[in-house]
Amino acid sequence: MPENNLKPGSTIGILGGGQLGRMLAVAAAELGFRCHIYCPDGESPAFDVAAARTVASYENEAALAAFAGSVDVITYEFENVPATTAEFLSDQVAVLPGVRALAASQDRLSEKELMRSLGIDVAPFAAVDSLNDLEAALERLGRPAILKTRRFGYDGKGQVKIMPGDDAAAAYEALGHRPAVLEGFISFAREVSALVVRGRGGETAVYDITENVHRNHILHTSTVPAAIRPETAAEARALGIRIAEALDYVGLLAVEMFLVEEGTSERLVVNEIAPRVHNSGHWTQDGAGASQFENHIRAIAGWPLADTRRHSDAVMTNLIGADADDWHALAAEPGARLHLYGKAESRPGRKMGHVNRISRKRG
Amino acid sequence: MPENNLKPGSTIGILGGGQLGRMLAVAAAELGFRCHIYCPDGESPAFDVAAARTVASYENEAALAAFAGSVDVITYEFENVPATTAEFLSDQVAVLPGVRALAASQDRLSEKELMRSLGIDVAPFAAVDSLNDLEAALERLGRPAILKTRRFGYDGKGQVKIMPGDDAAAAYEALGHRPAVLEGFISFAREVSALVVRGRGGETAVYDITENVHRNHILHTSTVPAAIRPETAAEARALGIRIAEALDYVGLLAVEMFLVEEGTSERLVVNEIAPRVHNSGHWTQDGAGASQFENHIRAIAGWPLADTRRHSDAVMTNLIGADADDWHALAAEPGARLHLYGKAESRPGRKMGHVNRISRKRG
Repeated sequence: MPENNLKPGSTIGILGGGQLGRMLAVAAAELGFRCHIYCPDGESPAFDVAAARTVASYENEAALAAFAGSVDVITYEFENVPATTAEFLSDQVAVLPGVRALAASQDRLSEKELMRSLGIDVAPFAAVDSLNDLEAALERLGRPAILKTRRFGYDGKGQVKIMPGDDAAAAYEALGHRPAVLEGFISFAREVSALVVRGRGGETAVYDITENVHRNHILHTSTVPAAIRPETAAEARALGIRIAEALDYVGLLAVEMFLVEEGTSERLVVNEIAPRVHNSGHWTQDGAGASQFENHIRAIAGWPLADTRRHSDAVMTNLIGADADDWHALAAEPGARLHLYGKAESRPGRKMGHVNRISRKRG
Repeated sequence: MPENNLKPGSTIGILGGGQLGRMLAVAAAELGFRCHIYCPDGESPAFDVAAARTVASYENEAALAAFAGSVDVITYEFENVPATTAEFLSDQVAVLPGVRALAASQDRLSEKELMRSLGIDVAPFAAVDSLNDLEAALERLGRPAILKTRRFGYDGKGQVKIMPGDDAAAAYEALGHRPAVLEGFISFAREVSALVVRGRGGETAVYDITENVHRNHILHTSTVPAAIRPETAAEARALGIRIAEALDYVGLLAVEMFLVEEGTSERLVVNEIAPRVHNSGHWTQDGAGASQFENHIRAIAGWPLADTRRHSDAVMTNLIGADADDWHALAAEPGARLHLYGKAESRPGRKMGHVNRISRKRG
């Protein structure tokens, strides 16, 4: 039995109280763990399934210290946990997947440089710290191109597309002159993701590659099996493992990729990584031996990883805003597994739940 | 959409805070419900996954009234909730599966009389309210026989076997002269159970019949498929539905039966019913479309029932007392799905968790 592993009954601290924290807490409870959720928002859905809650800001050192003192390991459900918060906590107790993975994913520039250092393709990019930088970058990368803030972007926030004829200064203005990255436009056939889990002892497992469709920059569906050649899928899995190993990662890592078709061949371009359980892995709750949530908890607890094999074909569809009003019809639909997050208020664009439509494995 | 159904975000009250309450709360959370657990024991495992908790006795009317006022429906995880408590609460809010089902299952004599009135076989029995009654009953039913208290028995508690030569007075003494029932001995080949779920609209579904093995009066394993003829299985399912309908039952009902072999034919004898989710249904978490916990929650919430079909063969093994110390090996075992209840203290005879061993469906 490895030294680092947590006994049942131990307490897992989770930074962030959204639906990912909620599903992590449920998975942890099924293995006999207690969860303590730390979140600034007193109305967090994860509070409803946790043994303990702290409502405080990520800068409140007294609250953070008390939290760290009450738990046996800390993880997070979103990558924008301030690095200073993670470092402060990690003086007291292990913070996993790790401060390094957080840092790499919080800054689009570092993230791309890491990929490049690992020999992994990313879209052509250039750092933008001034309007001059932006104009030079547009010259080099061409249009259309996408200007993205280096930090704190998600679900399409903090980015603007620059088309031929668009005013570069207006785009720079739109992002508030923040440090940014310009990305060249990638003409991709499909978006896919790799969900890798890596244990405390370095062992890894990867779920089947997932094909993702976005609407309005928000994930709409994830489908397994993905329409991808076996050799490209193998490459996507290997690439995910390479990133996890480079970051000495512990837990579940999501790698979002573009699948580019060039003549008869396929090529993968990494778009971004998320150092946490991921919306594109929700199908694993009903389509795989063990869910991404369970495997994340097992990994950070130092437990053996559980079966990542897909036993069914699956299509996960997010329920955004008013989509969740159809809960009664979804609850009655054969083969549909409904998951709702218990959010009190439905707002446009808000993720309220998801449904996994499961069918016999063919692919 | 039926009138009685609860919207996501509603609160489900659960009387009792053990592992059944815990697994019900987790299933409820996955459908977007909040749970409020009411239990006299401040160390209850279900508290760790609930949005709200009340620690108070089942006789505390102020606490009960506040509880009823805070929830949209009430259910229970054990059948020994005092009938007065259930009646008190049901003046304020629906208590399901229902006061009638509670009453029927709390008294072995009423239970057997109900079965008989439905034309369902039970072991030969006689009411025992005095030593004279007991002696007359032994004369009529023969030995061995089992003397059971009418109320508050579980896991073999509150019963004593009377063998040829045993002193009847000593047996009566052992049960504290409480109102009892003497049951004739049934020589059965196997024990099986039917798990029936019935919705608010009267619709029913039944899981595959489960074969159960007890050790020291505590459930040891449950196996599906059971070694039972298809026609006997169909009879077991039909009998479960008949009982649920007679009780105007809402939720999951467990019916424990003996399978008696007579020459080449099989006969079913009902042993007892449990008006709640049941240990012999834990395999449904990993072997069926939806678990008994989810279907119980759906039923009491007025939702459509979910798929009860078995997709895999399964053997559920309870982890009693020190069995749970093997958690690391169990967590590493391929095909084994480990469930732990988060109980702080392991005591002999205490249910600490269970493991579902899943394999490809053959039977």
